[in-house]
Amino acid sequence: MSRLDSFIRRLEAQRACIDFAARPGNVPEGPIFELGLGNGRTFDHLRECFRAREIFVFERQVNAHPTCVPDAEHLLVGDIMDTLPRAVLRFRGRVAFVHSDLGSGEDARDRATALKIAPLIAEAVAAGGLVASDQALVIAGWQPLPPPPGIAETRYFLYRKPRA
Amino acid sequence: MSRLDSFIRRLEAQRACIDFAARPGNVPEGPIFELGLGNGRTFDHLRECFRAREIFVFERQVNAHPTCVPDAEHLLVGDIMDTLPRAVLRFRGRVAFVHSDLGSGEDARDRATALKIAPLIAEAVAAGGLVASDQALVIAGWQPLPPPPGIAETRYFLYRKPRA
Repeated sequence: MSRLDSFIRRLEAQRACIDFAARPGNVPEGPIFELGLGNGRTFDHLRECFRAREIFVFERQVNAHPTCVPDAEHLLVGDIMDTLPRAVLRFRGRVAFVHSDLGSGEDARDRATALKIAPLIAEAVAAGGLVASDQALVIAGWQPLPPPPGIAETRYFLYRKPRA
Repeated sequence: MSRLDSFIRRLEAQRACIDFAARPGNVPEGPIFELGLGNGRTFDHLRECFRAREIFVFERQVNAHPTCVPDAEHLLVGDIMDTLPRAVLRFRGRVAFVHSDLGSGEDARDRATALKIAPLIAEAVAAGGLVASDQALVIAGWQPLPPPPGIAETRYFLYRKPRA
């Protein structure tokens, strides 16, 4: 499989996870968190899928397509370990869906980031809420979901917070 | 359609055009030209598809994944209007397939580049050879091909040089 094949599969898996979360009734009420804006393509997809919801975007340094930058109120710029803890204090247990795509391409660094953000995500998400992540997340008591239909391989990781 | 949807469709169309060219008997003997290396994903796909062929890559400034950089003999670094004319002198009428993905994201600039490189591509390609391009190319006497099967929209442009 070429890197082009692999990249297309990753993007298709990412989109399928977001589309799964956006199905009616699949997440509770509440805002959306997008961890990593990048070029803004997935933010654009999220705002199409979740038209009625607030989407808060976390980004170290904004470098997105000009049409895909959220307004200042919904853009939290800085190190994720500064911005995310503050947002957890504000939205604890109320976030419907988190999409996390902070991957730098360096495996060790990305695993370390995933370890640090997993407990913060766990605090932020509402009971029954979903998380889609480019990295595997280990959160006590959470179970990974199977990949959405049509996605053969786990290129992306999907979790639901227990309702109990 | 979100920018994520649009991007996935473009990549799928790009891959389908390369895979079409790579089908047995679909292009004559000869080398491959890759105009624009970028991150090297399509070069990686090309070398998987055309294992027995020489692939010459043209790139202004190399910024690819380290595993996806061709050897020095097959990497032509510099302005495409310097490197491509020299390559045409060397390979005139012998190139089996050209994949051109020089898009900068600026429409006017990309159209101007397409206008300048079209006659050079026309000179380089062998009779019966194929060109896949992110930009529409206007070459006298050449006909665009329909998009490959499964590609609903023309996100990529495919041409064959007449055999006569």
